[in-house]
Amino acid sequence: MSNTFGNIFRITTFGESHGAAVGGVIDGCPSKLAIDYKLLEEEMRRRHVGDGATQRNEPDRVEFLSGILDGETLGTPIAFLIRNTDPRSNDYNETDRLYRPGHADYTYMRRYGIRDWRGGGRASGRETACRVVGGAIAKMLLARLGISISSTIIHNPEPKPGDSSGGVIECVVNGLPAGIGDPVFDKLNARLAAAMMSIPSATAFAMGCGEKAAWMTGKEYRDEWNQDFTTKTNHCGGVQGGISNGMPVVFRTTFHPAVTINSDITNYIDENGMIHPVTVTGRFDSNHIPRTAVVVEAMAAMTIVDLGYRKVIREL
Amino acid sequence: MSNTFGNIFRITTFGESHGAAVGGVIDGCPSKLAIDYKLLEEEMRRRHVGDGATQRNEPDRVEFLSGILDGETLGTPIAFLIRNTDPRSNDYNETDRLYRPGHADYTYMRRYGIRDWRGGGRASGRETACRVVGGAIAKMLLARLGISISSTIIHNPEPKPGDSSGGVIECVVNGLPAGIGDPVFDKLNARLAAAMMSIPSATAFAMGCGEKAAWMTGKEYRDEWNQDFTTKTNHCGGVQGGISNGMPVVFRTTFHPAVTINSDITNYIDENGMIHPVTVTGRFDSNHIPRTAVVVEAMAAMTIVDLGYRKVIREL
Amino acid sequence: MSNTFGNIFRITTFGESHGAAVGGVIDGCPSKLAIDYKLLEEEMRRRHVGDGATQRNEPDRVEFLSGILDGETLGTPIAFLIRNTDPRSNDYNETDRLYRPGHADYTYMRRYGIRDWRGGGRASGRETACRVVGGAIAKMLLARLGISISSTIIHNPEPKPGDSSGGVIECVVNGLPAGIGDPVFDKLNARLAAAMMSIPSATAFAMGCGEKAAWMTGKEYRDEWNQDFTTKTNHCGGVQGGISNGMPVVFRTTFHPAVTINSDITNYIDENGMIHPVTVTGRFDSNHIPRTAVVVEAMAAMTIVDLGYRKVIREL
Amino acid sequence: MSNTFGNIFRITTFGESHGAAVGGVIDGCPSKLAIDYKLLEEEMRRRHVGDGATQRNEPDRVEFLSGILDGETLGTPIAFLIRNTDPRSNDYNETDRLYRPGHADYTYMRRYGIRDWRGGGRASGRETACRVVGGAIAKMLLARLGISISSTIIHNPEPKPGDSSGGVIECVVNGLPAGIGDPVFDKLNARLAAAMMSIPSATAFAMGCGEKAAWMTGKEYRDEWNQDFTTKTNHCGGVQGGISNGMPVVFRTTFHPAVTINSDITNYIDENGMIHPVTVTGRFDSNHIPRTAVVVEAMAAMTIVDLGYRKVIREL
Repeated sequence: MSNTFGNIFRITTFGESHGAAVGGVIDGCPSKLAIDYKLLEEEMRRRHVGDGATQRNEPDRVEFLSGILDGETLGTPIAFLIRNTDPRSNDYNETDRLYRPGHADYTYMRRYGIRDWRGGGRASGRETACRVVGGAIAKMLLARLGISISSTIIHNPEPKPGDSSGGVIECVVNGLPAGIGDPVFDKLNARLAAAMMSIPSATAFAMGCGEKAAWMTGKEYRDEWNQDFTTKTNHCGGVQGGISNGMPVVFRTTFHPAVTINSDITNYIDENGMIHPVTVTGRFDSNHIPRTAVVVEAMAAMTIVDLGYRKVIREL
Repeated sequence: MSNTFGNIFRITTFGESHGAAVGGVIDGCPSKLAIDYKLLEEEMRRRHVGDGATQRNEPDRVEFLSGILDGETLGTPIAFLIRNTDPRSNDYNETDRLYRPGHADYTYMRRYGIRDWRGGGRASGRETACRVVGGAIAKMLLARLGISISSTIIHNPEPKPGDSSGGVIECVVNGLPAGIGDPVFDKLNARLAAAMMSIPSATAFAMGCGEKAAWMTGKEYRDEWNQDFTTKTNHCGGVQGGISNGMPVVFRTTFHPAVTINSDITNYIDENGMIHPVTVTGRFDSNHIPRTAVVVEAMAAMTIVDLGYRKVIREL
Repeated sequence: MSNTFGNIFRITTFGESHGAAVGGVIDGCPSKLAIDYKLLEEEMRRRHVGDGATQRNEPDRVEFLSGILDGETLGTPIAFLIRNTDPRSNDYNETDRLYRPGHADYTYMRRYGIRDWRGGGRASGRETACRVVGGAIAKMLLARLGISISSTIIHNPEPKPGDSSGGVIECVVNGLPAGIGDPVFDKLNARLAAAMMSIPSATAFAMGCGEKAAWMTGKEYRDEWNQDFTTKTNHCGGVQGGISNGMPVVFRTTFHPAVTINSDITNYIDENGMIHPVTVTGRFDSNHIPRTAVVVEAMAAMTIVDLGYRKVIREL
Repeated sequence: MSNTFGNIFRITTFGESHGAAVGGVIDGCPSKLAIDYKLLEEEMRRRHVGDGATQRNEPDRVEFLSGILDGETLGTPIAFLIRNTDPRSNDYNETDRLYRPGHADYTYMRRYGIRDWRGGGRASGRETACRVVGGAIAKMLLARLGISISSTIIHNPEPKPGDSSGGVIECVVNGLPAGIGDPVFDKLNARLAAAMMSIPSATAFAMGCGEKAAWMTGKEYRDEWNQDFTTKTNHCGGVQGGISNGMPVVFRTTFHPAVTINSDITNYIDENGMIHPVTVTGRFDSNHIPRTAVVVEAMAAMTIVDLGYRKVIREL
């Protein structure tokens, strides 16, 4: 629950943005998987880059603490951490206790009665680094089976000067055999939706032709058979009745733009309901979409590995 | 997993469309809740109606087997069943073993190596009746706290003659206090997305302004504070950082049209890849959207009750 | 949780002793298992018999509602119910609201603020009938792999006239390969302990030589190797580090005698702390041990199937 | 599963004895708990001491990585690690790949096809340090409610020269109100049994009068009421129907002696079934019972906190 994702292949993450570290524990990874450190490094790099992307200059070095011996998994929990080497906690002060608009400051306070006021705390996008680690391990497992996951940014306006932009990322899973996904509540599409909507700033999820389906008739929407069990169209995005049908799994996730904008005068609110105009002078993303793509893929990879295990269990 | 939804307030459902019964077990419902049988009956009726809606004429009488004494919950599991009184299994014969396009026939076969060929089996929309029972109980719990859930069909074209139509349903939760929802993977929006996408024929989910967020700048999207902690706009749909902020929780779900259409010649496929044109003569929904609304509300209600319990646990 | 046992192969049970029915839902059973109805019937009979055993004369006919087609499992949830055909609720009246000594009447009231006063309610031994159904299915799965489970009553004094007796049941799992069980908290012995101690009236659990281990030295206790990886002794009961080692899995469970005795004058207590001597005139077990053996085996079978699935998942 | 204990208050542990670190993540701890570092330190010390106890001289300094700000919990996951500062991996060499008798070397190999041969790996008793951290936090939560947990060594022979001894630890929970524990499978006694039997070298668990119950009649065993709802005897150990009854919760756990003994010639076995007599020259515990007591308490504390939360959820 809460900070754990998955049932059989599962990751538990932890960490506040300006605490000692973020990290996670992956439990349920099969033994004898050779860790592809190059892939991991590349995925971490993809999450970190940016034109003017994130300017917080953390190397995001992943330190593994357990579960791996001589580069191979042991089947025991794989714990890792990423130190917050550049906390810059002094960037935050006078306005620390105020609630920013569009952030989780106020909601965490209502949820817990306390919050880590140093940056985004647990709600910071920094947490997604841990998802990328888990996703990289999941991709290594999928690669053995010829399953690959890739993503394309299909909408992402240039951020206006002094403002920010969001976008839409399409993700495709190729090579997934038919039969992955579980009825009734653990449908592949349902689990993907939860995975994507759990990413910070996600606002919408669409499977296959998504919202367009409501503007089609049943005959238009229906994916007709080819004789090899592929379908002539893929409106459903490769999932029928919650289970993969062997076609590419295709889905899109929409992300809203970052709401904190450098040099912007922003109206914060205090515990008593007083509004405080604050000139924001931190370093913030005007366009986080390019580096969110790898997070989308990571969540998809972990979702598929977790559900994939269920099918293995058909005959004891 | 699979046939269980929720963690603390949880429902496990069972049943094939043409087996003996569908039903479920609700575990984690607090004791001493007075069952509002009228509400339950009304919800079941809402799921059953239709212009030419579903023509399978089942009364859908809910029989409770446990967990209730003299109309009050005991805190023990509430089991219920809905007999399939009108199975009409003889409506199905020659073409029973064929895979219909756009259905889960083929995918269940790939998943399990066997399937219930009598109608949709476990993948049938009939299963949603059980969700409505769980949702009704959840609504009774929420009503005690002044939380209400309602839905509006915001798009639903008239079905063309000899065809079918889908639509979009908007759901609003009113009265939900700030502080409901859990970081990181159990965000309220993520859990709602999974809940909605698990409903048969769902294709897209949007929170607040949803996919429009990608066409807005950060300053446009940002929900500014009022002094009473409400916000001037509600683009985020009442959830920030995965936790409710006290504004109405607003989300939309898109559903594709039914793909089996009465009197339609449809290309089925057999196990060997041979295509068989079949004239469909069952009785099918040309427009399932009106009766899906109550299922949307039911899933929302159960999601909120389950997450709501977590907040209760702040201080032992 | 609570009314669900197992993670991958899981059973959720429901039902009060004098409600409409008891029953359960088995989720995670692989597809294409042929149901051995004879075995099931025999197991139900073993739970029912008794010299003067239980005198409540229920046939305990198991009705399957879903998950099975033509005698074969579908992979979907297997729901079943056992009607309470002979509720005799009029056996209970004046003293219904009183709390019996040694029963769960008072504790359920403190837990839930309400209780089913008709007999034992949810705490009744009648609930174990559902475990036997789940256990029978699990045994069918294990039989395919040559794994068998049997039990022996190793202590069970003749009940004294007008009194009752408990006993000790030893259970042995033969044919279990090495490698079943999970570190750290899901050790096979830990899971067996929870399974056994969840059976009504269980008071102690011992693995292998159990409590005797504390009276042995390390050299005496240590199970020495044979060259075929069997061990010269089996003090550990076939489990090392929580994982089966290929030797027979051996454990013992102790059960206390029934505390309600026919014709006995018993001191009940009411909500206000007043003691009421009551002459008990129901029909009660003076020796429940013979029919508890099949419950022990059922819980062991489900435990092993559930943990066994984990090992299957070593390589995706 | 596996490396996670608990449902609402849950700990996930990780780490091999001679890897970089052991540690854990506690999820579900309420916010605003002041960490009692003194208590934590004292508990860690209790686990470390020994006459000639463990001679591996690790300081076991707990480093918290998240979830705590200014000494107070945030409600977010509490991650901690304990570095293995003194791995002494060179104590292990020639005989590293052999399987010791009475250890988990062979079973881990059968489970995972690979194992950490450096000491006990994941199966090492070192893992219990993480349980003590979780237990200390749980004790802090219980202390606020006046619930205390203590233990007594009730049997623990002096280890013979050149041999080792086991023992029996009795644990008592005082101040626990009636109503904690869940039917049917999450009975307080069942959960305690699993908790205790998951501790390395546990061989038996007894609730209240335990195995003696089988030598008593029903009238002897039955705990009779006093007018204040206490009972005249406490044979059941404070739990009836799986739910606490307000009496002290009393249970005993038996532990076998350590099977690796300093200077002992021990018969190891290799992968091919060849026996190798090895003179053991590491540093090992001849009596681990004194330092196991705090682990027993830790597991009891976490069990009770986790089940305690369930009762809180009676009325939303």
